[in-house]
This record gives sequence, structure tokens and C-alpha cells, in this order.
Amino acid sequence: MKSYDVVIIGGGPAGYTTAITLKRLNPERSVALIRREEKVLIPCAIPYLFHSIDSIDKNILPDAPLHKLGIDLIIDEVKSVDLDNRIVKTSKSGEIGFKKLVLATGSRPTKLGLKGEELKNVYYIIKDYNYMKEMIESIRSATNIVIIGGGFVGVEIADELAKAGKNVTIVEILPHCLLKNFDEDFAILAEEELRKHGVNIKTNTSVVSIEGSGKVEKVKLSTGEELPADVVIISVGVKPNTDLAKAMGLKLGPLGGILVDNCRRTSNPIVFAVGDCIERPDIITGKPIMVQLASAATTDARIVALNLSANGAPCRYVGSIGVFSTRIGDTVFACAGITENRARKEEIDYVIGVGEAVDRHPGVLAGAKKIKLKLLISKVSREIIGAQVAGGPSVAEFINMLGVLIQHRVRLLDILTLQVATHPWLTPSPVAYTLYAAALDAYAKLRK
Amino acid sequence: MKSYDVVIIGGGPAGYTTAITLKRLNPERSVALIRREEKVLIPCAIPYLFHSIDSIDKNILPDAPLHKLGIDLIIDEVKSVDLDNRIVKTSKSGEIGFKKLVLATGSRPTKLGLKGEELKNVYYIIKDYNYMKEMIESIRSATNIVIIGGGFVGVEIADELAKAGKNVTIVEILPHCLLKNFDEDFAILAEEELRKHGVNIKTNTSVVSIEGSGKVEKVKLSTGEELPADVVIISVGVKPNTDLAKAMGLKLGPLGGILVDNCRRTSNPIVFAVGDCIERPDIITGKPIMVQLASAATTDARIVALNLSANGAPCRYVGSIGVFSTRIGDTVFACAGITENRARKEEIDYVIGVGEAVDRHPGVLAGAKKIKLKLLISKVSREIIGAQVAGGPSVAEFINMLGVLIQHRVRLLDILTLQVATHPWLTPSPVAYTLYAAALDAYAKLRK
Repeated sequence: MKSYDVVIIGGGPAGYTTAITLKRLNPERSVALIRREEKVLIPCAIPYLFHSIDSIDKNILPDAPLHKLGIDLIIDEVKSVDLDNRIVKTSKSGEIGFKKLVLATGSRPTKLGLKGEELKNVYYIIKDYNYMKEMIESIRSATNIVIIGGGFVGVEIADELAKAGKNVTIVEILPHCLLKNFDEDFAILAEEELRKHGVNIKTNTSVVSIEGSGKVEKVKLSTGEELPADVVIISVGVKPNTDLAKAMGLKLGPLGGILVDNCRRTSNPIVFAVGDCIERPDIITGKPIMVQLASAATTDARIVALNLSANGAPCRYVGSIGVFSTRIGDTVFACAGITENRARKEEIDYVIGVGEAVDRHPGVLAGAKKIKLKLLISKVSREIIGAQVAGGPSVAEFINMLGVLIQHRVRLLDILTLQVATHPWLTPSPVAYTLYAAALDAYAKLRK
Repeated sequence: MKSYDVVIIGGGPAGYTTAITLKRLNPERSVALIRREEKVLIPCAIPYLFHSIDSIDKNILPDAPLHKLGIDLIIDEVKSVDLDNRIVKTSKSGEIGFKKLVLATGSRPTKLGLKGEELKNVYYIIKDYNYMKEMIESIRSATNIVIIGGGFVGVEIADELAKAGKNVTIVEILPHCLLKNFDEDFAILAEEELRKHGVNIKTNTSVVSIEGSGKVEKVKLSTGEELPADVVIISVGVKPNTDLAKAMGLKLGPLGGILVDNCRRTSNPIVFAVGDCIERPDIITGKPIMVQLASAATTDARIVALNLSANGAPCRYVGSIGVFSTRIGDTVFACAGITENRARKEEIDYVIGVGEAVDRHPGVLAGAKKIKLKLLISKVSREIIGAQVAGGPSVAEFINMLGVLIQHRVRLLDILTLQVATHPWLTPSPVAYTLYAAALDAYAKLRK
């Protein structure tokens, strides 16, 4: 029986980054990565397979770094894990021994169970090469497409398909799209962008049934309306894949994800878990939340790799900030920390700081675009606890700067006196830099 | 005699932002801004007046916010200050009383004193509307332009003029351009970009004399070479304008700037100073450095405004990080903290972490550009003490994120486990995000 220092189950960004980081830091350790898929799709770019990327084969997580570092890649299915004897049992490769095990089993689409879901051309977003390849083909020849669910995946696909010239409609059960990440003000801005780029949106609306003979033909809405549909895409969130964890007797958290500590250690100290299959504490409330993003998964991966390293550091984790960015039309929307809606629900006292600035100075320079920022500042600690931004491409790293401020619990006064670089072609003027404008607005309100 | 709670002398970004922030936070206080100029140029965009901005009148710091907030704008020259009686004496407006005074007297170009400097079409970068208007006209009709000094202003002007189709040559006395901000590796990258966009560069070279009859015709170099020149631009740094401060008996620092404390209070407690006229302590060494950037000036301004506010907070300043960004061709170069060259000079033990990534994932997405990052990590504290980056436009806010990490003295392990947002169209993949790659490289070296 082949045996390894560390065996990782799951080949998405979480498992992949765990393997690579661990081996990079500990070339002497033996590491195996077991995954089901021959080819792993880069998950974040799946929405862009429908138009912007001309071949699915250009969106594959490369295996070369695994091979180069000497990580054993085993394409196989794990049937069970014997924790007492530290053995993974697989379908084809037999038994594989380990000293430490890392679960990176990912997530699966939440099923709606709608009448008509079984019809041809009704799809979920399943991160599987062959499934996705067929879906891409169906979409290429479709005219009318209905997307059920206006979360970020649904919105990104809608934007992409509108750019491809399709007639796209999002059906969202909540009053607005993207309400998991943004407050109404930013959600409305995002909807305006979507509509401007040709996406139809039906909010406060659910789907009653999907209709057609063999193949989908239309979708019946709760409003009584019927939408013609050549393709239906259901994107209403994902659920942690915990089948193996449950079979191993590992504890799950209240949201159904694998329960882990700050080091990503499960209830069994020889088993770690990373990525979409776990739940994490929120940085502000400490309560468990689900943040199923590849970026969050790779942070888990680095934490595990550091903690599994010889001379490894003690675990560090301040809680999830749920930092996230997306692009709609040519506008970037991004958020970190908590929203006003969530702060109100959690009875957290906050003050809002808003700032607007143009991302060039002077604003006559070519390509100028307005940035809109909303900060949430805790009334108790005067720390920044949340941020929502819309603007040009610079917003993508701007939110990461705001994310650092939230992770390091930086106080409003330290934000006001922060040093930043500005440039005529690249940022707002230092006189009116968006972060300063919003921070000053919050500070003026707190002094009243 | 009219009297004010606060009188500010100087109308550039430092004085302007002090006035606006102060009045915004304290509408009940009376504030006057005294400046010499009818119209104030946005200083950072001066290089872009030569081609990208079609009229100098589109690059004016607007007075409307001053008027709107009820700040008295006095266009006049200050002759002297009577500190005992708290009176400013002006040329035309007579005496003006104050309770607190803020000096924002800026900087002046360092003069070379070259033979031939007095010839027509030889220019310094003087932030004066009429001077600049004439300079723009001369440049528009010029073919051959020589820029003396390859610092960031010289490089930005060279890039702009090359884009305008001029034959531009930079003459730099040091072995490379931009060595004040970058190490050789990044300086060489910048020079490659400049050359790619048609700029000629002569390094290790000085100018012996400027020749011509009445009007400049050529420039003689230390190498013996002669360059034809219709226009010569001298840009070899700036010096703090401390005439008034010296006349007032305020203490200057070892570098010739006004000496201030963390609150930007001068040696006289009723006088504050902000912007290019002061010197500040470096965040890493604590030694005084000159950082003459509008962005740094506006941080001074906010610090003073906060400290002069009723219920104001105690001053906060961690020291200057000298954070800075520029664009050459379509590549952005940015830095924060200290360089390797300076760390060696100061005998600071450091380790380097380098990372490269493409700012899209997958890299086949349109507009992808490579980002190159170098981090300096202190061997003693394992904190990040410096960063240099080159890449696409996202680098401009990426350096601000790195700047926050430096200002908050974040340790390497906390960088490795940082949470960031990534997006296919906007950032590198989370698996290979530039900051993680560089941090991991440094960490692996430190563990050896």
C-alpha cells in the first residue's frame, strides 16, 4: 500500500492550492491529491465560457505545477476513509495510507426540485468538463435563455449571455438581485447596469414550472407570465458536499458545512477541511457563515499548508470577511465585511460613510469612470466593518485594500490619515480620493 | 482688520485639502486661504498637459468647493507674519488676523545653474498657469526635446511627449532612471518600457551646457555627444519653499524642510505646516525624508484638520511610506516603503519575495497583462517593509493595499493568510495571486 505524509481529497482550487503550497514549503514531504475529474475547470471563469473564452479547454486548472513539485495526482473516486488505520479506500487505486488528511470536497448546486427540471436544456452550474461542454453547445444555438436565481453567478452568466446577443431573463425571488452581497442601493445600481446591457430582470418572482415536450420550451412564473426558453439555467446557490465527512463521523456546523477550527482542523485532529465544504466564523459577529468562493478556499489552503509544515506557525484566522468582486457590463461591483441589512439584523450600531469620486484626475482624462463607495463604521469600536463599491476596474484591488482594513480592524481615524498613492490616469485625485471622502462623511456624522 | 480662526497660506493640494477638511468638520469656524495664484494647476497632471489634456483650463483645482463651504479665498502675496500678534501682512489685502496658522508653501524646482539655462525654450516645471501655458505652446511646435533628469516627473513627461510623436531624450546622471523610487531591476523594466515607446535614454550622463543663439539649439553632454534640442526641460527634483518659515523663525529639519511633529505642528505651537515644504520621518528608519507628492500632502492636510477640530483626535502618524505610482506606456510602476538599495545602505536585514502573475484568469481573457511584485520582509520583525510592482492598471490600487500592509506593519504570516477578492476579468487567479506568490517565496526563504 502506498502511503503519504498528506493526502488531499478534491482537486478544485482548495485542494490544488493546499497541495502546491504544502509541497512548496516542504519538498521532503510526500503529498497525494486524489480527485474524480480528469480535467478541472477554473471555477470562477465558468460564466465566461459561454462567450468570452472560445474553448473550454482554455479554462483548465493546469496539472503541470502538481507534477513539477512531485505531488502524486490520483484520478479516482474515494469510497471511504478508515480513520483508525489512516487509510483512504478508492475505486480503482486500492488503499492509500496517510498521516494527515485534507478534505476539499467542494460544493454542489442547490436543487430546486421544480416541475420540468428533468427536461433537456435545463442546466445547473455543475463544475464538470463534459456537462459544461454540452451546456455551452446548447447555449450557443439558443435564443431565449431564462436564468433562475440572481446571485452573483446568475448575474455574471446573464451579463455574458447578453454580450453574446442572447435574449436573457433573470428570475429572482427576492426584491433585488445580489442581495446576499449588497444592500438595496448597490443592488439597484447593478440591476441598472444589467438592464442597460440588455438583461431582463423579474424580481419578487419565482418559477412555478418549466414546460416543454422533451426539451424545455417555456417557463411559468408566479406572476402568471410565461417566458419562452430554449435554455434554462438554475443558479440558486450551492451546498457543501459533506457526504464523505459525514461517513467519517466528522462534526458538521449549524449551516451544514464541515466544522473546523482556526487551523481548519475538523473534529478529528488528523483531518483538515478547506474550501466550499466548510463553514467559517464571520469576522464581525463570529457566527458561522458560508462563503463559497475560490478566493476564500485558497486562503483555507494556505492556512492548512502553513499549519501542516514543519516549523509551522500557529494558525491565524480573524474570521471571514466575505470579500468579493464581480463585473457587470463595464462596471465592477465589490464588497467586504457586513452589509447594512445584516448589521440591522444583528443589531449592530453603525454609521454610514459615502463617497463618490472619478477614477482619473482631472476627470477629462480618457476612460474616466465614477467610483461609489459606502463604508460601515461600528459606533462602538469606530472600526470599519463593511464596504460596498461600484466603479471601474480599479475597484477590484481597491476592495482588497478595504478588505485589509477590515481584517486588521482599522479605526476610522487611521483611515482618514492613511497614505495612498494617486495618479492622474489611475485613481481619483488625492484631494477627493473615494476612501477619504467616505471616511470623512462617516467621521462628520459621528461628531454630531 | 479681518480675523479668522485658521489662516492657511498656500493653495496647492496641501492648503486646499486642509481648508476643505477643516471647514467640513467645523462649519462654525472661520477659515481663510491665502494664495498667490489666480488659478491653481492640478500638479500631478502637469505632464499630461503636453498632449493628453487638450487645454490647460481643464486642469485647474476648482475653487467652487472653497466658496461653497464658506472659506474666504484671498488671492494675495504674504509679506510677513507677526506671530506675537497673530497677524499675516499681505501685499494688497492689508493685515489678516488668525488664531492658528497653517503653512502650505510648497516647493520650487531645484536649479541646475547650467551654462545656457537662460536661453528661450529652456524650462523648469514651475506650477504656474502662465508659465505652463507658454511652455505647452513651445512644446507643441517642437520636434526635438531633451529632458534633463529621469525621476518620475521627467519620465512621465518623456512618455507623454513620445506619445505625441516628439523625438525625446532623457539625460540622467545616475546609472538608471527612477532610482529614487525603485531598485535597478524595476528601473530597468521602466527603461525598457520607455524605449519601447520611443523614448531615448542616456544614463550615467550629465549635461555640460545648453547652447543656442537666443533660443536653445542643442545640448552638450558629458560624453562629448551633442543633442539637437528645440526645447529643454529641466526636472531634477524640488526644494521645500521655506522662505516664510525662515523669516518667522521656525525650525527647519536636517534636509531643509520645515520641522513638524506627528500633528504637523511646527516649532511654534500655533503654526502648522503641510505638504512639500515639510520633512517627515520615514516609517522604517524614523529618519527624516522628503516625499514631495500631492498624495502625501493631502494626508498632512487631513492630520492637521483633525487635530485643529473641536473634539479633535490626538495626532496619528506612523511615518512616511512614500507610496507612489506612475504609468509608462501602458505599464504601471508603483512602490511603497523602502527599496533594497536603501535597506542595504541602512544595514537593515531583509529577505526578498518575488511573485509574478497574469491579471486575468484564465490568462486567455482579453487585456491580460503580467504583474511583477517584489516584497521586502524584515528578517527581525518579519513585517513587510517595502514593495515594488509593475503591471496593468490594477497595480495602482494594489500598491495601496500593500501600503496599508506596510503602514500597519503586517507580518508575513498574516499576508499569507490574508483574504482577497479575485475575479477572472480583474485579478490574477486566487491560486496564484501575486501577493501570495511573493509572500510564499519570502516565507520559503526564511524557513531555510
